[in-house]
Amino acid sequence: MDHDLTEFRPISWQDDASVTLIDQTRLPLEEAWLRFDDYRGLVGAIREMRVRGAPAIGIAGAYAVALAAVECERQGAEDLEGALDAAAREIRAARPTAGNLAWAVDRMLERALLSGGACALVSEAKRIHEEDVVANRDIGRYGAELLDTGASVLTHCNTGALATGGYGTALGVVRSAWSQGKLSTVYATETRPLLQGARLTAWELDRAGIPFTLIPDSAAAYLMRLGSVGAIIVGADRIAANGDVANKIGTYGLAVLAREHGLPFYVAAPTSTIDLDVDSGVGIPLEHRPTDEVTSVAGVPITVQGAQALNTAFDVTPAECVSAIITERGVLRGPYHRSLESLLEAAHA
Amino acid sequence: MDHDLTEFRPISWQDDASVTLIDQTRLPLEEAWLRFDDYRGLVGAIREMRVRGAPAIGIAGAYAVALAAVECERQGAEDLEGALDAAAREIRAARPTAGNLAWAVDRMLERALLSGGACALVSEAKRIHEEDVVANRDIGRYGAELLDTGASVLTHCNTGALATGGYGTALGVVRSAWSQGKLSTVYATETRPLLQGARLTAWELDRAGIPFTLIPDSAAAYLMRLGSVGAIIVGADRIAANGDVANKIGTYGLAVLAREHGLPFYVAAPTSTIDLDVDSGVGIPLEHRPTDEVTSVAGVPITVQGAQALNTAFDVTPAECVSAIITERGVLRGPYHRSLESLLEAAHA
Repeated sequence: MDHDLTEFRPISWQDDASVTLIDQTRLPLEEAWLRFDDYRGLVGAIREMRVRGAPAIGIAGAYAVALAAVECERQGAEDLEGALDAAAREIRAARPTAGNLAWAVDRMLERALLSGGACALVSEAKRIHEEDVVANRDIGRYGAELLDTGASVLTHCNTGALATGGYGTALGVVRSAWSQGKLSTVYATETRPLLQGARLTAWELDRAGIPFTLIPDSAAAYLMRLGSVGAIIVGADRIAANGDVANKIGTYGLAVLAREHGLPFYVAAPTSTIDLDVDSGVGIPLEHRPTDEVTSVAGVPITVQGAQALNTAFDVTPAECVSAIITERGVLRGPYHRSLESLLEAAHA
Repeated sequence: MDHDLTEFRPISWQDDASVTLIDQTRLPLEEAWLRFDDYRGLVGAIREMRVRGAPAIGIAGAYAVALAAVECERQGAEDLEGALDAAAREIRAARPTAGNLAWAVDRMLERALLSGGACALVSEAKRIHEEDVVANRDIGRYGAELLDTGASVLTHCNTGALATGGYGTALGVVRSAWSQGKLSTVYATETRPLLQGARLTAWELDRAGIPFTLIPDSAAAYLMRLGSVGAIIVGADRIAANGDVANKIGTYGLAVLAREHGLPFYVAAPTSTIDLDVDSGVGIPLEHRPTDEVTSVAGVPITVQGAQALNTAFDVTPAECVSAIITERGVLRGPYHRSLESLLEAAHA
């Protein structure tokens, strides 16, 4: 594994028609790899967040469709596209908020309508993966341009190589700014309940040699007031047509606090995260996860038995709190219903 | 122990000249009591947060001075006040932010100047304790008047019986509103890093039969935007002359978010928390605690080895974000430099 993770791939297609992925639930204490040759196993891994982060979920979903196609073909199914339907429904439902998952599955099903069989679908999934890595490099470059030299950046959750096909979105911007010598330090929120910041972002920044300080989620406001933060950069799980952004719970609060402190609040995401079929954040389904993720940490209970808890995994940041959306095709500013539509129209032209 | 904790005392003076306290670091998994007949042991317990919450720290500090006085007298010290000086310095330094600690120690030293010896100091410490319980009942009553019937309240950290002489400040308001049938539910933030909300507030609310939902600290903004929160009520570790409030890290962010959502943000604290010698929040020392409180939970590491972390235990909420300060002598509104001064002048008149 490359030390600074710039070439790291959290998930890969193997030539024996299987998918390997690093088990993100066990990081940073253990670097354990899993192997799936059955799409159902991979769907389980998505649901259990062994692979997570909207772009990585999309790629995993594409590989899951490819695995299902290989299975169909082995079983001699004649109508590949029809046979994939049930699998596609199951894959799409694994995580409801990530826009990239439905996007990737739809793209795979469109490909299935053309000729080529399972082999063509495997190629398409690999293409989705490689496009994401390229997109992240471009996002990183565009995003780094927005930062002042010597900037300190606060980020939430994990948006690095682990959350994507490789390199990262918001953390790709951090990586890119660091390689240009523009970045002074990173404040990484620990990101309760599942501690993706403490576990995964810290692991990536540590390997990249980028200086960082881990903070409790609730300390972000204090640091902003202190003047320690130059910009906030987060990823996105889904972006609606009006620019509303669904992302890890806590993002919305950070956006409000950024505005209060006059700090730029940037969202970094590939265009595959943009969902023009959803008018606004109201239309984005927010996943509610099991409450034991809140009531225990690493298997240790942290509250009274039977306590009721809230575990909404995402919140919606209204477009007016977003200073810019950094995509692989450039930096978008509000009003987003216009800039997002133009961007995607240009792409399809 | 009474089930709903309305008569519960987290700390008590015993007739054999010792102090017992419930070890709050082990709640809610274990209800373990500790006994100290030496002030140094009690100071250690304050530092290690076995007893915490500004009013409870003040009471523990008073009892520590009493223990030191008993020890001085046993050793035949002639100049009790002089002999207490070193102990007082040590006690005051145990936790730097809690205004009640210096307040209680100063009051004990003033009492030492009068006649009566250790016995009089023990009585004074018990009086400080009982006054706090009475104050909390009054705070509870005044605070409940501010709430609408059917209100849902969001609170941070633990401000209940455990954090005080008994009953609680912000949680005393919750208790009082609940007993009046005015309260619908409580949202308790888990309060990282030490999880006082998940461990202690949940334990108290569970025993009181008050319905509550535990939330990650970062979910507060989402709930406010959803319209689920009617008011935010927190305690205070120290209140400056201008109304700036030092309290558990995360309080400042909640106050900004409350204002953004048009929600009242109340601070509930006895007058012993008010420090007119400090002009504004800038003058309040904020305690930095060991970073392993952030980098591990219940002894389990949650991040990469050697990760740098921030563990500033408190932040300062500027007075302009505080809708009202609820004291045992009534509800104060801004401008606080006037209302606080008048209140304390009236008390000393």
